[in-house]
Amino acid sequence: MAKNVAGPEIERLIQLLARVPGLGPRSARRAALHLIKKKEQVLGPLAEALAAARDSVTVCSTCGNVDTRDPCTICTDPRRDNGTIIIVEDVSDLWALERASAMNCLYHVLGGTLSPLDGIGPDDLNIKSLVERISAGDGAKEIIIAVNATVEGQTTAHYITDQLDGLDVTITRLAHGVPVGGELDYLDEGTLTAALRSRTTL
Amino acid sequence: MAKNVAGPEIERLIQLLARVPGLGPRSARRAALHLIKKKEQVLGPLAEALAAARDSVTVCSTCGNVDTRDPCTICTDPRRDNGTIIIVEDVSDLWALERASAMNCLYHVLGGTLSPLDGIGPDDLNIKSLVERISAGDGAKEIIIAVNATVEGQTTAHYITDQLDGLDVTITRLAHGVPVGGELDYLDEGTLTAALRSRTTL
Ligand SMILES: [Zn+2]
Ligand SMILES: [Zn+2]
Repeated sequence: MAKNVAGPEIERLIQLLARVPGLGPRSARRAALHLIKKKEQVLGPLAEALAAARDSVTVCSTCGNVDTRDPCTICTDPRRDNGTIIIVEDVSDLWALERASAMNCLYHVLGGTLSPLDGIGPDDLNIKSLVERISAGDGAKEIIIAVNATVEGQTTAHYITDQLDGLDVTITRLAHGVPVGGELDYLDEGTLTAALRSRTTL
Repeated sequence: MAKNVAGPEIERLIQLLARVPGLGPRSARRAALHLIKKKEQVLGPLAEALAAARDSVTVCSTCGNVDTRDPCTICTDPRRDNGTIIIVEDVSDLWALERASAMNCLYHVLGGTLSPLDGIGPDDLNIKSLVERISAGDGAKEIIIAVNATVEGQTTAHYITDQLDGLDVTITRLAHGVPVGGELDYLDEGTLTAALRSRTTL
């Protein structure tokens, strides 16, 4: 925007909104204007929600999840099956699995994947805390490694499998296959091969 | 998201972010997580910027622009040509024209267009304040009606022209034509006809 059009508070708001993923500079302006117009309904409540999150959000010292309590809501939920721990790269993966509601178990958030090129080694991820957690023997029987099906993800999966060697747990990984609703034509050969190998009887 | 995954502060943040234009429910989750991770760099500053905007933003009683001062930065800028007032539907149009930097004049924001079907009549728009402003004779010589080229916009333009009848000002409107970079093939016939009629000598 040209200089001296709106007060510095509005300019600063636009700049910060442009740093929110999903909003670029253009949508940041549109968003700012909408928020200003909906001052009572949206802008005020959003300011308060952000301040509340800033003041209360913390990282779970057990599993690496983000929450407003430590240990987090999931780790302290007595209705969860603590016999299974799903290992994920990021909190967003934990949220995605929770939305699927397929399991009612515990998680461990690595906080990334091993990536020597980016200088990310085992000590930069929550791997030590994972090994300690499982060695402590708090009931885990199965560890599901649900990292992304990328090279880094698979390298990380192998490393974790090595670290858990000798502990009394079964280690599994997510099945490969055709995504639900996916068209074969658009899938890579690796996925198709895996889907064929793991074919099931109807 | 499934219930009881994250604290209520995070859930509320996601809900409010989903109401920001440009973010849907899915991107709101991603945005919330990013903000939480960038607590010091983005979440905190954004919370403060929103609170500052909430506390300071006001509508200019002269022109209808939003700013942190009334009269607004534009209305009080002594370097602006007060002989020309551009009439726009919305503050976003004012911002767009300012970005174009084509004029260095004053504005009048209507706050919408006449729309009998939606129950929006002249009293719902800043038309009375426009007529008063120009009747007061504070220097305006030309009124550029820069409303959208829609049916409602044009109806509003006609109504305003009638209201300003008898006042000592020239009323103009934006030229129709081919957008810069626009391909003729994609333009409607009305635009092409207008572009032909207003053709200029090279
Ligand atoms: Zn936890
Ligand atoms: Zn103003």
